Amino acid sequence: MKKPPGEFELIARLCAGLPRSRRTILGPGDDCAILAPSRGPQLLTIDSMVEGVHFKLKWGTPEVLGARSLTVNLSDIAAMGGEPAACVVNLAIRPGLSQAFFDRLYRGLRGAAAAAGVDIVGGNITRADQFSITIALLGEARGSVLLRQNAHTGDAIYVTGTLGDAALGWRIIEGELRAHGAARKFLVDRFLNPTARLEAGRALARIRPAPAAVDLSDGLWQDLGHILERSGVGAEIDPAAIPLSPAYRAVAGSDTAFALGGGEDYELLFCTRPRLSDAALSRRLGVTVHRIGKIVRGNRAILLGERKGAQGSVPPLTGWDQLRAND
Amino acid sequence: MKKPPGEFELIARLCAGLPRSRRTILGPGDDCAILAPSRGPQLLTIDSMVEGVHFKLKWGTPEVLGARSLTVNLSDIAAMGGEPAACVVNLAIRPGLSQAFFDRLYRGLRGAAAAAGVDIVGGNITRADQFSITIALLGEARGSVLLRQNAHTGDAIYVTGTLGDAALGWRIIEGELRAHGAARKFLVDRFLNPTARLEAGRALARIRPAPAAVDLSDGLWQDLGHILERSGVGAEIDPAAIPLSPAYRAVAGSDTAFALGGGEDYELLFCTRPRLSDAALSRRLGVTVHRIGKIVRGNRAILLGERKGAQGSVPPLTGWDQLRAND
Repeated sequence: MKKPPGEFELIARLCAGLPRSRRTILGPGDDCAILAPSRGPQLLTIDSMVEGVHFKLKWGTPEVLGARSLTVNLSDIAAMGGEPAACVVNLAIRPGLSQAFFDRLYRGLRGAAAAAGVDIVGGNITRADQFSITIALLGEARGSVLLRQNAHTGDAIYVTGTLGDAALGWRIIEGELRAHGAARKFLVDRFLNPTARLEAGRALARIRPAPAAVDLSDGLWQDLGHILERSGVGAEIDPAAIPLSPAYRAVAGSDTAFALGGGEDYELLFCTRPRLSDAALSRRLGVTVHRIGKIVRGNRAILLGERKGAQGSVPPLTGWDQLRAND
Repeated sequence: MKKPPGEFELIARLCAGLPRSRRTILGPGDDCAILAPSRGPQLLTIDSMVEGVHFKLKWGTPEVLGARSLTVNLSDIAAMGGEPAACVVNLAIRPGLSQAFFDRLYRGLRGAAAAAGVDIVGGNITRADQFSITIALLGEARGSVLLRQNAHTGDAIYVTGTLGDAALGWRIIEGELRAHGAARKFLVDRFLNPTARLEAGRALARIRPAPAAVDLSDGLWQDLGHILERSGVGAEIDPAAIPLSPAYRAVAGSDTAFALGGGEDYELLFCTRPRLSDAALSRRLGVTVHRIGKIVRGNRAILLGERKGAQGSVPPLTGWDQLRAND
């Protein structure tokens, strides 16, 4: 096993020449980064990816891993309707990982940061037995903030994009499912290269009253549960309305279990008055959206119709509340 | 081995009833925390403590560990002369740790946060093989900011408190050094319960021109090196002037090796014009300070006198620049 490169050397190397916007007064290299005063309310989140838990190195390139480690945080800002601004990165590095590996990891991270308008303003490196990347991301609210607690009876429930692709991609890459050609490529890519729906989040923050929103990191059923719990409402979901990609259908047919229970899609689920058609709302948000159900009184999510395909070991049947209890 | 408690259960439990100041608009429980707009420039830092690397559970109580995990971050804010405001906490939890353990960890963390005026506004829990606590801390600058790059030829070099206590405490707790009674208790406590010099940092930020400062986490020699590198200057240090506690002297005599090379003291080192006596400066900063040397031209730190006690395998003789090269 190679020793990991020295912490001081590595952090200096990875942070060298990091671009920064006008909001960053001082980037990496001191005890703290210094940022210009915020203009509006601020958003703060932290997320971590651990080797062997959230990713395996053999799954993809270091660049893809670096980008994804930021995207999972960007998605939290998107789910609040905010604008990401600056992040600090903690790398726990283990023996066996080379300097070249970290250079490539940071290349991906820098690319994702630049694309989202985020400054990487600081970092910390520690040795560990297990490799992990933990990022804290600071953003700013623009307009309203999309809270989980804002869902109201009568709201329609929408999701962006298609669901379950990442869950299938993960199973394909792990050899648990077979897929070929374009479908395989699409699904694996959806898992490894998720997109944070920042533009859609910003557009949602301009709607009055402010919609409720959550990003789909743990899966539709579980994340919907967060909205219901915080808003004190129930939901009816029409499984036939859940958007499935052609690749999903090619691999899993019309079985919505992966779309209902699978995580890591990083799409947005949001609840708002049903004023616009899906098509009009899609244009406004810059991404395809589908209405999949509605908010009702109560405190549970109900799957309409109980189609055969929805039966299985995946969350819909256990329910988010039971999942939590069994956790 | 016990399974770790479920992530959702645990984070909800740990974050239940967290107190918050007026600056926190929304605490834990949504995709992001929401904070009121900052009044001044903001400070952002991240730090991590990994079991087996930075701490062992047998060293002390979970409360002490929780407090220390925030203190190492508070110290970074202190070294900038800032006011800590809000933090987000990432726990990587391994099997074998009980819910009661995390309750106690958070009790310590909450206590340290309350004492420093910090709101714990969010958290994330992930499973891992190795237990670690990673905290990102947001603060605000008050007055000037204490930068590592602000040291100038002719500045005096000061440190707060006494140095090397934590290095001895660590060796005592690990059985590498013997100590008894009050000395043992003092040194181990200095290691396990460090104090972030927030008040001293704030007082330093009111001095014009703004002093240079760094917190002593890696050890005097190494952290002084960060100042020299960023400021493009050299330093002369008088080993006889380095403040040693009575407990330090009881265990290590006049050997300054631990004070020069040992880390984890979380005292402040700062460089400023020598206008006040040590006593007057101590009163102003609310903590005892000692002048230990001066900033000179060049790019190296020189130890005056080369007393016998300073010889050894500890950093002074290898020098921070060589340390880095060998890292």
